[in-house]
Amino acid sequence: MKTKNILGLNILSQPFSNGIFKVKAKQVGLPPGELIHVGKQKTEKPVITLVDYAPDHIETLTDISVEETSAFIGTSSVSWINLNGIHDTGIIEQFGQQFGIHPLTLEDILNTQHRPKEEEQEEYILVILKMLYFDDESQTINAEQISLVLGEHYVLTFQERPGHVFDGVRDRLQRSKARIRQRGPDYLAYALIDSIFDSYFHILEKVGDCLAQLEEDLISDPGQEALARLQHYKRELLLLRKSVWPLREVINKLYKEESSFISEGTQIFLRDLNDHVVQILDTMEVFRDALSGLQDLYMSAVGNRMNEIMKVLTIMASIFIPLTFIAGVYGMNFEYMPELKWHWSYLTVWGFMIFSVICMLFYFRSKKWL
Amino acid sequence: MKTKNILGLNILSQPFSNGIFKVKAKQVGLPPGELIHVGKQKTEKPVITLVDYAPDHIETLTDISVEETSAFIGTSSVSWINLNGIHDTGIIEQFGQQFGIHPLTLEDILNTQHRPKEEEQEEYILVILKMLYFDDESQTINAEQISLVLGEHYVLTFQERPGHVFDGVRDRLQRSKARIRQRGPDYLAYALIDSIFDSYFHILEKVGDCLAQLEEDLISDPGQEALARLQHYKRELLLLRKSVWPLREVINKLYKEESSFISEGTQIFLRDLNDHVVQILDTMEVFRDALSGLQDLYMSAVGNRMNEIMKVLTIMASIFIPLTFIAGVYGMNFEYMPELKWHWSYLTVWGFMIFSVICMLFYFRSKKWL
Amino acid sequence: MKTKNILGLNILSQPFSNGIFKVKAKQVGLPPGELIHVGKQKTEKPVITLVDYAPDHIETLTDISVEETSAFIGTSSVSWINLNGIHDTGIIEQFGQQFGIHPLTLEDILNTQHRPKEEEQEEYILVILKMLYFDDESQTINAEQISLVLGEHYVLTFQERPGHVFDGVRDRLQRSKARIRQRGPDYLAYALIDSIFDSYFHILEKVGDCLAQLEEDLISDPGQEALARLQHYKRELLLLRKSVWPLREVINKLYKEESSFISEGTQIFLRDLNDHVVQILDTMEVFRDALSGLQDLYMSAVGNRMNEIMKVLTIMASIFIPLTFIAGVYGMNFEYMPELKWHWSYLTVWGFMIFSVICMLFYFRSKKWL
Amino acid sequence: MKTKNILGLNILSQPFSNGIFKVKAKQVGLPPGELIHVGKQKTEKPVITLVDYAPDHIETLTDISVEETSAFIGTSSVSWINLNGIHDTGIIEQFGQQFGIHPLTLEDILNTQHRPKEEEQEEYILVILKMLYFDDESQTINAEQISLVLGEHYVLTFQERPGHVFDGVRDRLQRSKARIRQRGPDYLAYALIDSIFDSYFHILEKVGDCLAQLEEDLISDPGQEALARLQHYKRELLLLRKSVWPLREVINKLYKEESSFISEGTQIFLRDLNDHVVQILDTMEVFRDALSGLQDLYMSAVGNRMNEIMKVLTIMASIFIPLTFIAGVYGMNFEYMPELKWHWSYLTVWGFMIFSVICMLFYFRSKKWL
Amino acid sequence: MKTKNILGLNILSQPFSNGIFKVKAKQVGLPPGELIHVGKQKTEKPVITLVDYAPDHIETLTDISVEETSAFIGTSSVSWINLNGIHDTGIIEQFGQQFGIHPLTLEDILNTQHRPKEEEQEEYILVILKMLYFDDESQTINAEQISLVLGEHYVLTFQERPGHVFDGVRDRLQRSKARIRQRGPDYLAYALIDSIFDSYFHILEKVGDCLAQLEEDLISDPGQEALARLQHYKRELLLLRKSVWPLREVINKLYKEESSFISEGTQIFLRDLNDHVVQILDTMEVFRDALSGLQDLYMSAVGNRMNEIMKVLTIMASIFIPLTFIAGVYGMNFEYMPELKWHWSYLTVWGFMIFSVICMLFYFRSKKWL
Repeated sequence: MKTKNILGLNILSQPFSNGIFKVKAKQVGLPPGELIHVGKQKTEKPVITLVDYAPDHIETLTDISVEETSAFIGTSSVSWINLNGIHDTGIIEQFGQQFGIHPLTLEDILNTQHRPKEEEQEEYILVILKMLYFDDESQTINAEQISLVLGEHYVLTFQERPGHVFDGVRDRLQRSKARIRQRGPDYLAYALIDSIFDSYFHILEKVGDCLAQLEEDLISDPGQEALARLQHYKRELLLLRKSVWPLREVINKLYKEESSFISEGTQIFLRDLNDHVVQILDTMEVFRDALSGLQDLYMSAVGNRMNEIMKVLTIMASIFIPLTFIAGVYGMNFEYMPELKWHWSYLTVWGFMIFSVICMLFYFRSKKWL
Repeated sequence: MKTKNILGLNILSQPFSNGIFKVKAKQVGLPPGELIHVGKQKTEKPVITLVDYAPDHIETLTDISVEETSAFIGTSSVSWINLNGIHDTGIIEQFGQQFGIHPLTLEDILNTQHRPKEEEQEEYILVILKMLYFDDESQTINAEQISLVLGEHYVLTFQERPGHVFDGVRDRLQRSKARIRQRGPDYLAYALIDSIFDSYFHILEKVGDCLAQLEEDLISDPGQEALARLQHYKRELLLLRKSVWPLREVINKLYKEESSFISEGTQIFLRDLNDHVVQILDTMEVFRDALSGLQDLYMSAVGNRMNEIMKVLTIMASIFIPLTFIAGVYGMNFEYMPELKWHWSYLTVWGFMIFSVICMLFYFRSKKWL
Repeated sequence: MKTKNILGLNILSQPFSNGIFKVKAKQVGLPPGELIHVGKQKTEKPVITLVDYAPDHIETLTDISVEETSAFIGTSSVSWINLNGIHDTGIIEQFGQQFGIHPLTLEDILNTQHRPKEEEQEEYILVILKMLYFDDESQTINAEQISLVLGEHYVLTFQERPGHVFDGVRDRLQRSKARIRQRGPDYLAYALIDSIFDSYFHILEKVGDCLAQLEEDLISDPGQEALARLQHYKRELLLLRKSVWPLREVINKLYKEESSFISEGTQIFLRDLNDHVVQILDTMEVFRDALSGLQDLYMSAVGNRMNEIMKVLTIMASIFIPLTFIAGVYGMNFEYMPELKWHWSYLTVWGFMIFSVICMLFYFRSKKWL
Repeated sequence: MKTKNILGLNILSQPFSNGIFKVKAKQVGLPPGELIHVGKQKTEKPVITLVDYAPDHIETLTDISVEETSAFIGTSSVSWINLNGIHDTGIIEQFGQQFGIHPLTLEDILNTQHRPKEEEQEEYILVILKMLYFDDESQTINAEQISLVLGEHYVLTFQERPGHVFDGVRDRLQRSKARIRQRGPDYLAYALIDSIFDSYFHILEKVGDCLAQLEEDLISDPGQEALARLQHYKRELLLLRKSVWPLREVINKLYKEESSFISEGTQIFLRDLNDHVVQILDTMEVFRDALSGLQDLYMSAVGNRMNEIMKVLTIMASIFIPLTFIAGVYGMNFEYMPELKWHWSYLTVWGFMIFSVICMLFYFRSKKWL
Repeated sequence: MKTKNILGLNILSQPFSNGIFKVKAKQVGLPPGELIHVGKQKTEKPVITLVDYAPDHIETLTDISVEETSAFIGTSSVSWINLNGIHDTGIIEQFGQQFGIHPLTLEDILNTQHRPKEEEQEEYILVILKMLYFDDESQTINAEQISLVLGEHYVLTFQERPGHVFDGVRDRLQRSKARIRQRGPDYLAYALIDSIFDSYFHILEKVGDCLAQLEEDLISDPGQEALARLQHYKRELLLLRKSVWPLREVINKLYKEESSFISEGTQIFLRDLNDHVVQILDTMEVFRDALSGLQDLYMSAVGNRMNEIMKVLTIMASIFIPLTFIAGVYGMNFEYMPELKWHWSYLTVWGFMIFSVICMLFYFRSKKWL
């Protein structure tokens, strides 16, 4: 493979295709609000799960249809309806009709490349977030979209495929004494967002480990391959940043909405979420800056190695080229070269050559090249 | 061609002349509001098209004069008048008189180098945008200006030349059940702007493909030509940014105008537009950063190749220059050189030379140069 | 000249002294408001010109004294008094007394190194701008200060030397039907500022042409001289920016002043001015970024040429140094060297040498150095 | 050790592992407000100290339990309760119950990786800060978290381990005439924060000394090791910045809180704190910029040394390679070489060689290489 | 001296120790408001000077005690009390008592490393500024702190040592017709600040001259020493910026204070001060950018000289190494070498060698290396 010969990047040809240059455009000319799924289908069959709870009761239903959820809406209990697999526009449309969701909101939910955002409508609040997974093998961060609709008595969540991110919340809901059971859908929404944010710290932890490993490798063997990895992580951080940066605004807007859906008791928890976002962003910035520092170090290591190589060449050439010249002089075939006949000439020449080598060595030492 | 010899850029001499340094100044001393067409004429004859519609009827007229449109103004139906070809200042002036458009607005419409902007006047709102085309051959992005004037009962659009960007909207207008038919001129304006924005994603998709290709080339063969292409795309992104950056402000102002022309029902759609602009800008920033990373990689590849070359030179010179010296010594013609007469001298010298080569090789291996 | 030997910059030693490091300080300890002319005298004799006009009449007087202007002040007609040459502090003081201008304002007018600014006083508005000229020979941008005082019935303009920038306005004033004749001094002030801004586009057009030329030269011959020119233009843009950047604030303040001097009808024209400033700044930023790109290209060209040079050296040395060694071996004078006596030795050595050259060439080709 | 061979960084392999890439994530799925200690345990047994004072009396208790503090709460005297060692979540929970502290606040106190922040609750104000220590041996800055809860009549401080930072305040409390005795808990909180800030100046003083030393080393011997140290300090500044940057906001919020806990008399002291933060940040920015300058100097020193090396090589090679060629020519064994027989040939050749060396030397001198 | 050998920086070892890394921390644990002099004592004995004036009288007293000033306070005349030498905390404390100055303010006055700031108290306004001196010998900028307290009827100024900066103001006070005599202490304060700002322009003028000189040197001889000077000036600008940057805020706050101490008539003068600050900052930014450009030029000059050197080496080696090989071939001692016996061999070889040299020269010329 030629790639290897030149940059030695073949190991990384895979991770580099991390889709940083992939942009997926909707077909032009479609009316806004037209429901199209943008992105890859990541699960086979959409599955709807419902958890209906109040402080004193809880009921869990799996793999039901959209219509079956209608019985739980409008009651005083909190309903959490989760959909795994959003490629079926029909189901999304049914949700739209049943819960009175604006077509543009549905379009956003279906567009898996949407930017994280918060939007308040009269009947609900929409929050779009990214769930991140770190693929240990290709060392890439994969993003998946999670949309959350918070209504007066319900929370809808839309995931691209089944995952374990909400398992913790589900467990807590089972405990009848848990704070989450005492509170409304706003606290449920907060708990769900919080568990997504928790996973970000895990991503950062893993990326941090990778960077620490990279740093070690870069110092012990500053090759082109290490630089390629460095660039790879720089890009992953770029993509990560794209997912995390808007969260600041999302949480801020959520916090400041004077919406009736969010009770005052929940607001202090949102403030806590904001702290988390800021900390994630801080860490990412520190990573970025530290990567820049590593790159500087690498660049200077390349320059220094060049100096090393040149020093060896210069020392060898400076010592032996003059000597070769001297030997060449007495290899000439002129008839009249009186030195050739003298008895001590040969030894004298050797003496002179050794003397000049010593001079050279002192000179190089004075220049700190040896 | 000499260019090729030095930078190998001849392939790209064309794309580089992407007019980044072209500034077209109006003639000094002209009074403001004087109608002059700034830019190239891009179509032969200006053509006016009118679509007049209400929920229950629709009428389409092509290639009419400005006067003929007057019959449709002032009625309760929505009139969309499109002009292809804006080089004829006379026609623009007629529009100005008929629709009460301020001379400065007309000047802006005629100046095809104008920055995207939004301006509210008492009788209308002006929106200037750029329609972008990606020329696959020269790999450049070409911009064309589209001006949109939104009045109480009408929408005027001014294009530099006929294009297909509004075809989708035109099709939807034909469907009597379409949402666009139920709504006023503000929704029409939104739909038109939306279809322009959709095309931006297509540009980004194409640019992204080009960058992915460039990346591959840069890794497999990091030559000067790849760097020139990298710089070429950097510039295209610069020009793209110039067209897209002001859109954020344009949409924001449109959204915040407390204008009677924009109904509340349309505002939620404008908010959606804003999401699109932010996503376009985000993607562009990621592209920029990724290009910087590629450039760093390229620069370090150049440095590494230098190291490679110098290593070969140093190894060859360090091994053979001393050997040549030894050979030279015994090529000297001194009469008194006892070694020359010894029987095993020749073999001993060979042995010594081979030994020194082996030492050298071990030394270079210890330095990881081999 | 030594300069030439090292950097080859002698052609540019002139343009480089573009005064970027010239700061002219006022004498310390002078009371504020003390009238001192800061800058060079650029014309011989100060000349006052007056144009007094109303929709129905116009009168033009040249080379009059300050006192003579008093007859026109206080009337309902608009008086435009222009002073060419501001080095005579006496005349400036007379203006101060006659039009009630604050000493600090007069100090600003006399300080030709003042930053562009807008200042509202109770009786007038002061606007300080820079008129720019592009000197084709030295390729430098020269700035000249123009101060404009807008009063209730008059406009004063102060120029450092006679110029043609206001000729267009003067011509329009002669036309009795021109809009400018129908309007007050605020519109006159706007027209004057507009004609200055128009000239900025011309500067940008010229600089753009220079940069396009530079780009071409840089690609066909990336020498040190081209880089020096690149740096030269970077500096010119720096100086240009210093003159243009504050304009944004100037126009903004002018637009937002709720001054009785500026009628509502003129405000839309000021908004247009703002568009122009933003476009000028945008273009300058694009120029800056494009220059950075060119510099990167140049730097990498230098690195690549180095690689080229080193490749030639390495190839030559790697091929011929070993061969020379072989020749040296058989030039040794040992008595017992059996090969010397063999009949085919000489041809065998030639064969071996040619073989090793071919091996080398294949090796270099595999490294893509040939 | 291999590391040393390549970058010579072995001395610094220790400091580099300054944990810049260490991120510690909470276990996913835990409910918010769950009390978990994040970080290392830094002291053996948590110790509670109480100081209760009023202008006329003072009482100090050491190593008491949380319950024992209750006797002092609610009285008009000021109680300062300090906890050294926060790894015991049970004790933290007791504090929470006794002083009515929100679970989220307790979570923040226990998370030693929390960002500095200020938060106002109805019953108290929480301030989280970092106490910094400079480890002279590894030249790293270690951060420790200090949380401060300001209530109506009390101040709680939570430290990770016993330290001397508050000794000054403790001493002043003993003096009955001290201003601190006359004032309320808000002034005590201010005094505690002030003493933490004072220690930041000491860190900066030490870092400054290190940088001055580094600068000296870098100029006298610009090796790779110095650059590694430079990068090391850059990172320390990064981490320092992470601890200090949020303080601006913390103090600002504290200053602007219209809280009943902070009297007007204390506000002027908070303004003073703000001055300190700004000065710390200023100094850090100057340090950063100065480090960048040092890096540029280093990079250029590497380039210059390369030039030096190449010059020596070029001079040696350019002088002796041609001479060797000449000697080689007259070492040829052609039968018909008339010069060989001439009497003065040998001397002439020497003359020519010396002449060419002199020419070379003049040439190199003209290029300023000698 | 070793330093010289490596970087040739010995000339600059002095200027580099410009204290950029010097941070002086207060002793930890001291109560806030404790009066300690931070900085060096710069004069022997503190000297108090008083100037008391009204439009119709003026009185000047030198070397008086603090108590003696009390007679002038509370009268309607304006008292300007200046203290040269602030190391005696006792005197500062006396001032504090007599004029009712807050201990924190006194602490600020004594801390000569304080950041420039403006602070309004109920009874006075405090302004802290830096007086700058340019030391021609070491080419460094030295800062000295000047504090100014503006009360209802008095102005206090505190200087570290006697200087001439206020001489101009003192002279103007003697002239009974001067505007300064007609106005209150606010105008006096303005005049004093203005004279400090004037001196900044002088610093910039001098720095500008130094930079122009540096530029010339850098172009005529781009050595390491010039780069070190460039870095030196970069640092001086950093330090200068630290002194000047906060002034923008200082003047802004002064201007916006709705304080009864500052009359409306003085506000227009403060606006003028603001113009000055902005101009100083602008100039500094231009200096910074221009220095960056010079550095780029220098870096590229280093690269180009490397190319130059390598070209000479490559040309010499490429021409003579092959020739030496040819000579070596015919220096071999094989018995059977038919060419050796031919009559024209020697001339043919010479012809071939000359031909190959000419080919080489053409090749190098085609590469533009000659």
